[in-house]
Amino acid sequence: MTAIGVGLIGTGYMGKCHALAWTSVKAVFGDGPAVRLAHLSEVTPELAAQRAAEFGFARSGSDWRALIADPAVEVVSITTPNQFHAEMAVAALEAGKHVWCEKPMATSLADAERMAAAARASGRVAVLGYNYIQNPMVRQIGALLAGGRIGRVNHVRVEMDEDFMADASTAFGWKSDKGSGHGALDDFGVHPVSLLHTLLGPIARVFCHQAKPYAARPLAAGGMRAVETHDIAAILFELESGASGVMALNRSAWGRKGRIALQIFGDTGSILFDQERFNELQVFVADGPNETRGFTNILAAPVHAPYDRFIPAAGHSLGFNDLKVIECHELLARIAGSEARVIDFDTGLAIERTIEAMARSSRDERWVGVSP
Amino acid sequence: MTAIGVGLIGTGYMGKCHALAWTSVKAVFGDGPAVRLAHLSEVTPELAAQRAAEFGFARSGSDWRALIADPAVEVVSITTPNQFHAEMAVAALEAGKHVWCEKPMATSLADAERMAAAARASGRVAVLGYNYIQNPMVRQIGALLAGGRIGRVNHVRVEMDEDFMADASTAFGWKSDKGSGHGALDDFGVHPVSLLHTLLGPIARVFCHQAKPYAARPLAAGGMRAVETHDIAAILFELESGASGVMALNRSAWGRKGRIALQIFGDTGSILFDQERFNELQVFVADGPNETRGFTNILAAPVHAPYDRFIPAAGHSLGFNDLKVIECHELLARIAGSEARVIDFDTGLAIERTIEAMARSSRDERWVGVSP
Amino acid sequence: MTAIGVGLIGTGYMGKCHALAWTSVKAVFGDGPAVRLAHLSEVTPELAAQRAAEFGFARSGSDWRALIADPAVEVVSITTPNQFHAEMAVAALEAGKHVWCEKPMATSLADAERMAAAARASGRVAVLGYNYIQNPMVRQIGALLAGGRIGRVNHVRVEMDEDFMADASTAFGWKSDKGSGHGALDDFGVHPVSLLHTLLGPIARVFCHQAKPYAARPLAAGGMRAVETHDIAAILFELESGASGVMALNRSAWGRKGRIALQIFGDTGSILFDQERFNELQVFVADGPNETRGFTNILAAPVHAPYDRFIPAAGHSLGFNDLKVIECHELLARIAGSEARVIDFDTGLAIERTIEAMARSSRDERWVGVSP
Amino acid sequence: MTAIGVGLIGTGYMGKCHALAWTSVKAVFGDGPAVRLAHLSEVTPELAAQRAAEFGFARSGSDWRALIADPAVEVVSITTPNQFHAEMAVAALEAGKHVWCEKPMATSLADAERMAAAARASGRVAVLGYNYIQNPMVRQIGALLAGGRIGRVNHVRVEMDEDFMADASTAFGWKSDKGSGHGALDDFGVHPVSLLHTLLGPIARVFCHQAKPYAARPLAAGGMRAVETHDIAAILFELESGASGVMALNRSAWGRKGRIALQIFGDTGSILFDQERFNELQVFVADGPNETRGFTNILAAPVHAPYDRFIPAAGHSLGFNDLKVIECHELLARIAGSEARVIDFDTGLAIERTIEAMARSSRDERWVGVSP
Repeated sequence: MTAIGVGLIGTGYMGKCHALAWTSVKAVFGDGPAVRLAHLSEVTPELAAQRAAEFGFARSGSDWRALIADPAVEVVSITTPNQFHAEMAVAALEAGKHVWCEKPMATSLADAERMAAAARASGRVAVLGYNYIQNPMVRQIGALLAGGRIGRVNHVRVEMDEDFMADASTAFGWKSDKGSGHGALDDFGVHPVSLLHTLLGPIARVFCHQAKPYAARPLAAGGMRAVETHDIAAILFELESGASGVMALNRSAWGRKGRIALQIFGDTGSILFDQERFNELQVFVADGPNETRGFTNILAAPVHAPYDRFIPAAGHSLGFNDLKVIECHELLARIAGSEARVIDFDTGLAIERTIEAMARSSRDERWVGVSP
Repeated sequence: MTAIGVGLIGTGYMGKCHALAWTSVKAVFGDGPAVRLAHLSEVTPELAAQRAAEFGFARSGSDWRALIADPAVEVVSITTPNQFHAEMAVAALEAGKHVWCEKPMATSLADAERMAAAARASGRVAVLGYNYIQNPMVRQIGALLAGGRIGRVNHVRVEMDEDFMADASTAFGWKSDKGSGHGALDDFGVHPVSLLHTLLGPIARVFCHQAKPYAARPLAAGGMRAVETHDIAAILFELESGASGVMALNRSAWGRKGRIALQIFGDTGSILFDQERFNELQVFVADGPNETRGFTNILAAPVHAPYDRFIPAAGHSLGFNDLKVIECHELLARIAGSEARVIDFDTGLAIERTIEAMARSSRDERWVGVSP
Repeated sequence: MTAIGVGLIGTGYMGKCHALAWTSVKAVFGDGPAVRLAHLSEVTPELAAQRAAEFGFARSGSDWRALIADPAVEVVSITTPNQFHAEMAVAALEAGKHVWCEKPMATSLADAERMAAAARASGRVAVLGYNYIQNPMVRQIGALLAGGRIGRVNHVRVEMDEDFMADASTAFGWKSDKGSGHGALDDFGVHPVSLLHTLLGPIARVFCHQAKPYAARPLAAGGMRAVETHDIAAILFELESGASGVMALNRSAWGRKGRIALQIFGDTGSILFDQERFNELQVFVADGPNETRGFTNILAAPVHAPYDRFIPAAGHSLGFNDLKVIECHELLARIAGSEARVIDFDTGLAIERTIEAMARSSRDERWVGVSP
Repeated sequence: MTAIGVGLIGTGYMGKCHALAWTSVKAVFGDGPAVRLAHLSEVTPELAAQRAAEFGFARSGSDWRALIADPAVEVVSITTPNQFHAEMAVAALEAGKHVWCEKPMATSLADAERMAAAARASGRVAVLGYNYIQNPMVRQIGALLAGGRIGRVNHVRVEMDEDFMADASTAFGWKSDKGSGHGALDDFGVHPVSLLHTLLGPIARVFCHQAKPYAARPLAAGGMRAVETHDIAAILFELESGASGVMALNRSAWGRKGRIALQIFGDTGSILFDQERFNELQVFVADGPNETRGFTNILAAPVHAPYDRFIPAAGHSLGFNDLKVIECHELLARIAGSEARVIDFDTGLAIERTIEAMARSSRDERWVGVSP
């Protein structure tokens, strides 16, 4: 199998995460093509060269179009700020490259639609970086659901909370500017929706309410400026399956750092999960004698594939960056034409439409259907 | 101080809980009047006599009007099924007795209004059995909020879940009949609302959605009958204070037994609480060095009054029935004319109106204000 | 059934706990004799009278011998400081009274032997106040063990930790004086040993090491005084069953409030328990598919008798004082000639001998057998 | 900075872990030399070639002496079975290579001494793979201790438990053969001792007891064979600092997967840690008002260096393999002549001597001093 050539645009939080995934994927999984780190792009040639040296890329530069044009590049990691995703992804697909683009997909529904169309037209693989769905414990939830372990799901709750906007004294920044989007709704919402999509299918209709913990924030220059985005959002919803649900998002939740808490209630049992302890999973099943029933806490172990590719011993914990390696492996499998667990651009568009329906519901104060 | 004469109507779950509270309150607290167990009423004279022997009441019978008329009775515990609350409470108040009535207050808003009016007219003490607010750890939450420990509260979430309706094979019973009320909304809703009222003040407006995990349930005689109540309810709300909130109620949540989970987010910290571990409390405060910040788990201790009246050692745990003893003590304080932490009939009516607004919102699919 | 007459000596921490148990036991359980609160004894007549009023005792005084001689008293609760247990218990038994004596049994092995002999000679019921064994969840552990749920037990660990001696600045007090005993060894040791005895049978041999976190403590008058007791003890042991074990005791463990943590390892599973969350229990059983194995957290529920006598709903939590009510009920059952779960004076003596063997081992730095 | 040439001997559990660390270290940390994967050795040339392709090594073969002799190799990762460590490490050091050898150091004290002597003679860096000490939360414990946050440490408890030997039906294997060592004592003991060494300094004396949960195990050919090693060990100890301690090890503890539980008690606070949730840490400090004291649960975050090199967001969790990357970075720092957090061969020898003292104590049933 010949090596696959990789181009990386952006080297921030997610760019580094992609670089680490590309570096490790072959060593972790053993199968698939070797990875050739071909071309890295950053805002300046100097930074690009520095990162290329750190990450081991053969070539670097500040022109992302040159990267896309580079014949040594077969797949492009796009990890730049969200507003650039559409232009880069469309260009890469049109140049015949596979694309691995970070979420959220785009900053407008129109852009997301354009990306999905480009992907369809290209015949190339176009995948979004929803790494939480790659967690072996999330896969295990999927296996439990598919196996009917808790029966038909009738209700679900999901919360996503962090505290990076919790400090009232933080100066007004771009996240409080309406140009950045709705706030928690698109910043966080896509993650729970991606999990719901993967585990329980699409959302049919939504009712959303948004809130601002702080009406205004201080300006660096003195004075205050009214906040235009909502750090808090709450959504009632119904899945196409008929199950009802509640979603709560808060990026100003003091003390929460990476909480994505799922509660799935079925006819014969329940499943609980929290991303802050993502190597664990709790399952209650209504069978056996009453006196020994309870939530069972399952620790991630080699039996939960592909945990075994990382560590042969149970209870030793995968890390957040490992999830990106799994995602990278799924992307390579899809490129090789195999079944793979990925959020492609069509599903990504469905997720964006769901968020958009939430925003519309919040504005109109009514239930809004998610158009397919 | 002369002893106070107690009448008890009903000896089921809450009736026994009242009996235990009346029996222990003087021994636990040391202060206040001695308690004279004067008169007990049950559906048959035989059952009444048996329970009177067990609980130590001097007199018994099946005529609750005789109990109310009994001059030996100064305060009446009403613990019968909800549909009898109004008639009994009004009669007792009109007879000049103090009333301690179990929640929910009544089965219609009209009844609740009648009860509140009777209480106002009587000049007697009329209190509802919202025992969760009596938990020393809930009081501690109140003290933390009052002391500004987490700043102004900007968002709150509360869940209440049990699983007594979770089994799909359970035969159709009165809780699935619309005569019993809305379902989880009034069965559970009053508890979170009472906690919010006590800790954070009244709710201003609500948006509610109700759901049925099972469309129909089996009849004992064979066949199925359509379920008329909703075992699941979810509510978006705004407090009068301006804080936004989410409430989720589920009486068919497999594995949940007595969960009432509170998450209170403030400008400078957060507070977490779960009734299933009600001797604990978690507090995050955004001060001190970042590397040692986190949620602090506080164990109930003598320093959290009136835990000290029960146990002089920390971390030894109060029980559910102890909360009723505290409530009984507050009732006696109120009767003695002191400040007391109780939900009186006026506040109880406000709680009922809040639930009613939720029901209306669910029916009309719109935000509904809670009329004061 | 005629009422049983109760005498109570002492009204401190445990005295009040006994009083509450005597007050509630009939109302909680419904069966057994009514309880007549006959006679209360305290150090002064005034305090005795005050407590008698609070607790509802008919007679009071400062002469415990008068209480024992009182024909209205059939059973005597002894809750005085430990050094008085022997004299009072022996006198009560010789007067033909049943005895309910708080642990630890006595302050010397000779006293404990005298008490056990008096109990045997009297033909009366003589029981010690080891209330932790009465917890329904501890009973559930016993049921799981008896049912072979985790196979033969091969190893056990038990820790007991509080922090009442943790503050180095606390003045030298009687607990640091060798007159009070060994320290954590007898202060705490009897509790884990009583649990082991009840659940897993007697200890065969021990190796013990004691430690002092603080060599000296401040005197109120200024200066320091060398500490003579050991706030920390650690014991390796073997049960008569052949299982090995580790016990760790620390009364200067900052942050621990009522921790008694059990870990029981068997051939086919494990059981975990912690008294700080004594309404819970964790069980791991090595069966079923590997991917869903884990520790199951069981919440106390009516199915765990006699929880149902207190609360008909699961997950609502018993309290520490409720355990004493259960113990009181077991005592009454034993008095009535029924099977009962109690630590009688013979077993209490065996527990004291085990502690004594630990002390000897610590002194001699060798394994010491527990003489039966 | 010129790249450093790496040789890897062994590609099992730890071999792959080393390979991943070498692959990622430069990309994660950005600093230090680039890494050249020069030479990989396995038991057969075929397996060596396969792994070299997967891991990206330039050269491969089955002759580890050729690897050591390879001038392209500057540092040698030794991850073979323990009995080969000594010969390989000594040879590598004598050839002037730096050595990164997996723990435990060797299978005999004589071998360990030979290795330490070779390291000293060589002037090269020789480091053992004790990766648990590299956890940012373990470093944070160290920082808290150094900063006096819990005062002088007076008592410590540490447990290490897994369940790979828990199944009684597992056939007799090499881990039950005395040729493999003592059992849990050396299999597990080195890890807690390495943590104690790093955080609290050397152990002064020990008393140890070993136990066998199963006297015999089935032979594949039928019949049973007596087990010669101890799956359980318990150790009482004193640190050179004067603190007392308890260590409990169990490799047949059903349900435990990667538990290394630390409890550190100091004069003014306590610290708790469990490797099964190694991105968390609990700290109790005895200051501030009593009503808000408790254990604070700290989530790993960028503020806990070098977590920030992996993930810029708090609460997103490092994984087990990430700890090896940190260790690799420390090794490179040491090679570059900087301060580094490593267990070198001298400290490794001290750890082995501590284990040996435990074994001797167990055999002689007496306290044994750890010779420096």
